[in-house]
Amino acid sequence: MKKVKIGILGYGTVGSAVDRLIQKNPSLGLEVKKICDISPKVKHSKLTRRASDVINDPDIEVVVETIGGVNPAKKFVLAALRAGKSVVTSNKELIALNLKELAAAAQKNKVALLFEAAVGGGIPILGPLMNDLSADRIFEVYGIVNGTTNYILHKMTKEGMSFSEALKRAKEKGYAEADPKKDIEGFDASYKAAILAMVAFRAEIGWKKVAFEGIARIEPEDIRYAQEIGYVIKLLAAAQRRGEEIEVSVHPTLIPCDHPLAFIPGPMNAIYVKGEPIGELMFYGQGAGGGPTASAVVGDILKITKNKSQITNLELGPVKMKDTAHTYGQFYIRMLVPDKSGVLAKISKIFANAHVSIAVVNQRETVGKNANLVIVTHEARQADLDRALARLKKLPVVRKVCNIIRVGL
Amino acid sequence: MKKVKIGILGYGTVGSAVDRLIQKNPSLGLEVKKICDISPKVKHSKLTRRASDVINDPDIEVVVETIGGVNPAKKFVLAALRAGKSVVTSNKELIALNLKELAAAAQKNKVALLFEAAVGGGIPILGPLMNDLSADRIFEVYGIVNGTTNYILHKMTKEGMSFSEALKRAKEKGYAEADPKKDIEGFDASYKAAILAMVAFRAEIGWKKVAFEGIARIEPEDIRYAQEIGYVIKLLAAAQRRGEEIEVSVHPTLIPCDHPLAFIPGPMNAIYVKGEPIGELMFYGQGAGGGPTASAVVGDILKITKNKSQITNLELGPVKMKDTAHTYGQFYIRMLVPDKSGVLAKISKIFANAHVSIAVVNQRETVGKNANLVIVTHEARQADLDRALARLKKLPVVRKVCNIIRVGL
Repeated sequence: MKKVKIGILGYGTVGSAVDRLIQKNPSLGLEVKKICDISPKVKHSKLTRRASDVINDPDIEVVVETIGGVNPAKKFVLAALRAGKSVVTSNKELIALNLKELAAAAQKNKVALLFEAAVGGGIPILGPLMNDLSADRIFEVYGIVNGTTNYILHKMTKEGMSFSEALKRAKEKGYAEADPKKDIEGFDASYKAAILAMVAFRAEIGWKKVAFEGIARIEPEDIRYAQEIGYVIKLLAAAQRRGEEIEVSVHPTLIPCDHPLAFIPGPMNAIYVKGEPIGELMFYGQGAGGGPTASAVVGDILKITKNKSQITNLELGPVKMKDTAHTYGQFYIRMLVPDKSGVLAKISKIFANAHVSIAVVNQRETVGKNANLVIVTHEARQADLDRALARLKKLPVVRKVCNIIRVGL
Repeated sequence: MKKVKIGILGYGTVGSAVDRLIQKNPSLGLEVKKICDISPKVKHSKLTRRASDVINDPDIEVVVETIGGVNPAKKFVLAALRAGKSVVTSNKELIALNLKELAAAAQKNKVALLFEAAVGGGIPILGPLMNDLSADRIFEVYGIVNGTTNYILHKMTKEGMSFSEALKRAKEKGYAEADPKKDIEGFDASYKAAILAMVAFRAEIGWKKVAFEGIARIEPEDIRYAQEIGYVIKLLAAAQRRGEEIEVSVHPTLIPCDHPLAFIPGPMNAIYVKGEPIGELMFYGQGAGGGPTASAVVGDILKITKNKSQITNLELGPVKMKDTAHTYGQFYIRMLVPDKSGVLAKISKIFANAHVSIAVVNQRETVGKNANLVIVTHEARQADLDRALARLKKLPVVRKVCNIIRVGL
């Protein structure tokens, strides 16, 4: 059997795992012909320092892009598509920012562009959304799509650690990089949220309209108080279709303890999907690591090589992205107030005047002369909440608004 | 756009939901041309009483079989494949007992045979196993694949109900049929276990070699004692590859409380997969109902119509099915013994002599003059356990061996 020739751009954790997986399984019918990496540390018998050697090799049918980042990955991927080669990539930033342009280039050149590995590592989620669930209308996709932050929040929840202790532990375990900014601040999850929304809704999502934030401001108190009222805190990537509008965001979120996403432990990932007529689904697995990610990349290669006719045909229509000021939501608010009578009455009045209705009030232990007051609102307009918060901050009895966290699902 | 014509055999819950889903979504590009059902209750403008009207209609490209059972479904499916039509079926019994023959007929006639709806209702699991995970070697598949029994066990666990109370509740809720034998006794799960094993391992699984049992013998005591030592009881469909041998079974099983499958509530289904290099995965969703099942059926139809080249190419190789007498496992044993000294010593000696090592001993509340004694073994040979049990039953101090349940995962 003649093997299909593959080229790999970028020989880091994922690229090298793809190479090993293909070598280990001759029955897959694949052969890595050339590898491009510019790092002087990389040594390999098939190595070239020039991407064009891979892109312009007439024997190579599929180019794997595992460089990461937009530049120069985008230039190489476009060149490969234009050279008539199908492309498989694990590059979430590239896809989040450029899917429409890249999918159009693939379609124009009658080749495939697949990127299962860009979301949820090895978890099959984009494949099911593109193929198995074609008969469904998807309304909501929620994901725990960043293993680093899920590990940190899980440690804080189960062992009462502070954020910085848990981050230190994550680095020791290899779950967080030396510079964990992209994970901790929500960039990584925001790319994945945008990709999930584009594929689930076949919609053109501007990544710049994805509101996102990280987990550094979550304190052990928040996790403890959330648990007391029946919630766990997760960094949630959310994509929702509301009528003709779409909202995509990444926020720390209070999730009810009995929701399937509440159980996702350590560095694991999960994506929860709601649609019609499918109802609810959840996909769970390892969201990172060379092995699982290589499974997704090589799985994508095999979809292309076993089925020559698979040309990317992902039409992303224009949509209205929801204006955050009009967004509704439930919110958890923790503030420091003096432990004396009359305080709650003043605070409640401000919420009532702003049309924000209160669902739960929980006054917790005293910190010096002050107490932690936790309020969970009913569904409220973000704009109304912002108005209430502006007034609260001017109220002398409110020493500090410590944290505001979304309550969801 | 010219619509692809579909025929439906069997207009029950699933067949009618497929018809509705196609009618509701003209953009899918499908049209139901003929429906066959012999029930006098079914009325429909497209109805025929003869399956051959559907099978031999030259306009119809895809035949949907939602009759259920082997006869006459098998005859109709074979006739449709031979007439050059692709077939999509939700019929687990048909596929479990005949997949090799039907897949060969599809391949010979260059058409597709797809059956995603036969396992886990709408949950995409066979699609991911056949496509997205093609680069992986799958070792283990565990499923909670019967919603009726999971609902009953969940009720028994959360509310302390007896089996018969919970079954009554399941019937009231519509989760159990009037005659729940196929669900309660494990037939339904055994079909799904066989299908999962065939697809995950590309192996010819004789359904008759699937050891299965139901949940009627599980008592509230077992659920309570299991919880006390950190387990929940689920009806588990298990397919494992051990070296060159494959074992497929369905048993009530003690699952560790922190395993992802332990959280699956009510009538929901989930399938847990372990492979290399993917690691662990879980797929969760609604395992039954017209809507979710129609999502899987129509998803399969679209795979065929959007991609004309998709010919079934599922080669099932011969495998050795593991002989149960050689199977290893951990076991929970509950017995009634007199509440006096020396009893445990006698019992322990019998286990030791049979080379069955004990992991947990838990003597529970007294029932008259007797006490419930719970023993959990370490990994042991089934044959050794059987020998120990035979001797235990002859021991005068063992009043009764109440239950033996597998401990797994």
